[in-house]
Order: sequence, then structure tokens, then C-alpha cells
Amino acid sequence: MLGGPTSLIPHDDINQHRHETWIGVDHGTVYLLDQDIIPVIAVGDYDSLVAAERQQIEKQIKDIRYAQAEKDFTDSQMAALTAFADLKATQVNIFGATGGRIDHELVNLFMMTDPRFQDWLQQVTIIDCFNQITFYPSGNYQLPYQAGYQYLAFANLTPVKNLTLRQVKYELTDFSADNPVSWSSNEFLKDQPARFNFTAGIVAVILSHD
Amino acid sequence: MLGGPTSLIPHDDINQHRHETWIGVDHGTVYLLDQDIIPVIAVGDYDSLVAAERQQIEKQIKDIRYAQAEKDFTDSQMAALTAFADLKATQVNIFGATGGRIDHELVNLFMMTDPRFQDWLQQVTIIDCFNQITFYPSGNYQLPYQAGYQYLAFANLTPVKNLTLRQVKYELTDFSADNPVSWSSNEFLKDQPARFNFTAGIVAVILSHD
Repeated sequence: MLGGPTSLIPHDDINQHRHETWIGVDHGTVYLLDQDIIPVIAVGDYDSLVAAERQQIEKQIKDIRYAQAEKDFTDSQMAALTAFADLKATQVNIFGATGGRIDHELVNLFMMTDPRFQDWLQQVTIIDCFNQITFYPSGNYQLPYQAGYQYLAFANLTPVKNLTLRQVKYELTDFSADNPVSWSSNEFLKDQPARFNFTAGIVAVILSHD
Repeated sequence: MLGGPTSLIPHDDINQHRHETWIGVDHGTVYLLDQDIIPVIAVGDYDSLVAAERQQIEKQIKDIRYAQAEKDFTDSQMAALTAFADLKATQVNIFGATGGRIDHELVNLFMMTDPRFQDWLQQVTIIDCFNQITFYPSGNYQLPYQAGYQYLAFANLTPVKNLTLRQVKYELTDFSADNPVSWSSNEFLKDQPARFNFTAGIVAVILSHD
């Protein structure tokens, strides 16, 4: 749980996940404690927290890792790294990653394009009230039909080669470019999986609803 | 004015700009009319609008351009193109571009990396309640100190070469990478301009506050 605006956190989802293993990042840790979820690890510099919030964290959480402002990894990268390397996570769902400050949001969106995170590229999902984002390296994919999401988008976050979209409302064939593009407002065909493939780059798949 | 969540639109700013030339895009057109601002042009497919809203637009706006769902340009790209090519704008401020659906937000953020928009790269600013985003091609820049923004970030939206940051809290020297990175949470030095330069790529500068 990162420290993004709480208005974008899907509270029902959090409740369903409450018995899983949580890592709190900065103000996200306070949010978790407020929901009676005690993260196994807290990460951050806690700069933006008031004294009472810091005390609450220090009292309730055993493993607190203090990040430094000038460092190789951002708080959210450090949290993801901790999840995979220390907790041996096979799937990491990231909440509180979107909205508010766009520099922070882009840190989280671009994180999975960092070569240091390539091993875990397909094990991360960013989730908020409107969006569910997953990441793919080059390859050939079939995405199961998801009834709850009206819109389906593909965004090459890096240069991409031969991006092809099939079994979707708007098909695309062999798109290559050096600049990122968000192919927005596409849609699943009813009850059919979407298919996509590309030969180089990293593509984010964004499922969303209004 | 694009159709993003109105909660992120800085209403005071809009009021200050009310006598400028406006283009409304989809639901952004309704927002403008609600503020008693009549855009000179409306662009969109108006799919998401109710009949009363469509009628209001048709009654009040002389130049209405109907975009098609399957097309070379998104609504927001078409609006920017219209501003530059038809209205000969020298500066375009984009509101309603952030929040809500991330596929839409990325369309707007990535738009200025499109080769077709390179001539106008430095004439666009994306503005919401928390952020002000501008775009730069390779070169050597000096950014005036801005007291109102606590945070200063640099994000290479494309591959970048030799990105160097000077006269900022956290300096960076000759960073090159093929993946995008959001260098977040940097800060101006008091009363000093920030300096940055790079030799290839497109960099977004994000000024933000909490």
C-alpha cells in the first residue's frame, strides 16, 4: 500500500485482501493501520507523517525500514523489491500508486520498465478504483475476457516493435515506434479473450471503467 | 478543456483564463458551458453525454467537430492540432487531462512525444490541481524558480541520453537509458533557477505540490 490519495483506493478490494501479506509505504502504512491491517513491513522516510502517526507505526509494526531521500531506489521500488526478494512474493498488488502527484504516479507506472525489475514484470498489478494495470515483455499473449471492465487499453511504455492487437474492437497490426503511445478506449469482444503480441519493448495493459 | 474528473480542475485558474480562447473536448465542453465559458470549437464523439448536454452544446457552440471512434488522432490530439493548426495558438494549456482512466491520462501525457507534435512541443502545458507539466526536446535549459511548487520532477518519457540536472536539491549527471524514469521529489534551490540538459529524447518537467 503506497501513499497515494485514499479516494482512489478500492476499499472493498482491500477488505477482500486483508488477510494477505501487506507492506506499507509511507502514508500508506497509516492507511493500513486505520483499516486494522497490520503490515509485516513498513518502508519509507515518513517525512510527511505527523508525530502521532509515526508513534502508531513504531508501536504496531515490528519491521520498519527507513528509506533515505537520496538513494538508488524510490520507496515504492524498495517496497516491491522487498516483496519479491525478502518475502518471496509470487504476485504483488500495488494500491495507492495513482492520483495526486503525477511524478509519484509515473515512478510507479515506469518502475516495471527498470531493467532491475524485469524478472518480476508479470507479477505486478497496479490497482485503483478505475484501473487495473499489468505489464508484459515481448511475446504472444491471450488476455481472458473480463466482464467488469468496459475499456481495454495497451500502452507501450518504451519503444515497441510489431505490436499487434487481435480479437478486440479496434485491431492493430505491426505497430512500431520509438515513442510511447497509449492505445486507449479499446474493448473486449463479448466473451472472447483479447490477443496481442509484440517483438520488443514493454507494454502495459490497462483495464478500466468509468 | 478535456473531459477528465472535474475534481482535479483548478477552478480559480480557469476563472483567470476565462477570457482566453477555449476548445472543449467531449465532457470538457459541458464543464466549460457550466462555467459560462463558451468555447470557440467543440471536439469529440460526445458518446458519454446525455441528450440534454448534447442539445446544450449544439445550441451554444457554432463550430462543432464530430470525431470518429476509429481514427488517426484521439480527441485530445485533435483538439491540440486544431489549436495550433487552425487557431494558430502560441501556447496551449490543457485542463481535464489527468485522473480517472489512466489510459486517457497517458494519451495526454504521451501526446507530446508523437513525432507529429514535435513543432509544438514547448508550447503545451498540462495543468491540474496538483501538477503543471511541460515538455522539452534535447537541449540546454534554465527553469525559473517557482515559489508555489514544492516539488520538481524530471521524467524522460522516451529513451534519454546524458540527462544532467544542476542547481536542484538532488543533482544528476549524464543519465542515459532506454526505459522511462520519473525522477520525482526533487526541489528548486531557494530563489535559483533549475538547470538541466540532455542530448536525446523527450523530458517532461513536472512541478507539483501536495
